[in-house]
Amino acid sequence: MATIASVKANCRKIMCIGRNYADHVKELNNQRPKQPFFFLKPPSSILLPGAGPVLRPRGVTMHYEVELGLVIGKTVQDLDPEDSQGALEAIEYYLLAIDMTARNVQDEAKRKGLPWAIAKGFDTFLPVSGLISKSRIPDPHNAHLWLSVDNQVKQNDNTELMLFRIPRQLSDISKVMTLEKGDIVLTGTPKGVGPVITGDVMKAGLIIEGKEIEEANMEVA
Amino acid sequence: MATIASVKANCRKIMCIGRNYADHVKELNNQRPKQPFFFLKPPSSILLPGAGPVLRPRGVTMHYEVELGLVIGKTVQDLDPEDSQGALEAIEYYLLAIDMTARNVQDEAKRKGLPWAIAKGFDTFLPVSGLISKSRIPDPHNAHLWLSVDNQVKQNDNTELMLFRIPRQLSDISKVMTLEKGDIVLTGTPKGVGPVITGDVMKAGLIIEGKEIEEANMEVA
Ligand SMILES: [Mg+2]
Ligand SMILES: [Mg+2]
Ligand SMILES: [Mg+2]
Repeated sequence: MATIASVKANCRKIMCIGRNYADHVKELNNQRPKQPFFFLKPPSSILLPGAGPVLRPRGVTMHYEVELGLVIGKTVQDLDPEDSQGALEAIEYYLLAIDMTARNVQDEAKRKGLPWAIAKGFDTFLPVSGLISKSRIPDPHNAHLWLSVDNQVKQNDNTELMLFRIPRQLSDISKVMTLEKGDIVLTGTPKGVGPVITGDVMKAGLIIEGKEIEEANMEVA
Repeated sequence: MATIASVKANCRKIMCIGRNYADHVKELNNQRPKQPFFFLKPPSSILLPGAGPVLRPRGVTMHYEVELGLVIGKTVQDLDPEDSQGALEAIEYYLLAIDMTARNVQDEAKRKGLPWAIAKGFDTFLPVSGLISKSRIPDPHNAHLWLSVDNQVKQNDNTELMLFRIPRQLSDISKVMTLEKGDIVLTGTPKGVGPVITGDVMKAGLIIEGKEIEEANMEVA
């Protein structure tokens, strides 16, 4: 079995779905998308377990976004959006991740029509859990994500709330970019995003059928 | 010496400077930036010499943008913008590249404040030349770029017209994302961008001290 360190070492692209939970779209006063859209984070932004803290660039309002991540296991092009089995077969592992976002930088980029690469791409802006075997998550559309800051729960929702499910996400992405082994897809964040400041401790986890998945547990300052 | 195929096989991120030539900023009715900004293209978008044509996604107005590319040779963080020698030492090779852009998709993304990843990231949207040894380009700020479509010259300008020079570009990028060996930086396009349709043949090249650099010659449909 691969390790999360080898996934980081070999990852070539990270595609992140935006606005994929209705209540999160509302909390940021965004428009609900008619189709999935995504942005890229660079592999250099991955922060391995225990390698923290997340660096806080000067002048940046940094937000957490907990997300279920997919580690792709094979080459996928032009996947049919109805091909649920094909989508599941494309996934080699799951992971939990926090899509750290320089919210004020992103807000300015959105206002000016500029790319999101800087807002999303700083070094350390993608803390990840260890790898989670597929067998641990029988249904990725029924997994409970949570994130706390200094032990106060901030995000706490089920992946069943996704606006676009994983087959549709992988279909839309793979019609643009060939998915390759080792690529990572982040599936969007539920409501409850907010700022963290230096010293705040983020914890996050994944609950399946009422049980915490140990490999998913994250703690990062 | 590496080959362009090995660069593609190992590349982990591609950072592209936007709006770096004044006349190109004007032709797209954009604002001149106060500081360099950049976006990411995925390694899966690289199109090796002879591997064409560029695929034209349905409904897409596809534009060419010829650019001088830098292949990074070492890890760089937080480079001083005045450190011209450090910047040059970070470069292992040059290449010529065409930053293909789904202009209508990008225009819509700009209007809606959405990311540029789709507009810039389709498979085949980054045709590249072979690798160019550093010794062939004594001064990267005095290199003449050209691009033709069906033998009509469309872009034809010198890199001396860059608004932000390479040390400043690498400084700003490396304050956000660690540059790693094998990364590629595209330094922006001069004026003259425009559409290509199926069957159009793009040629591009680089002239140094009045002479065509053979390794830079590109031809792609
Ligand atoms: Mg996110
Ligand atoms: Mg460009
Ligand atoms: Mg023609």
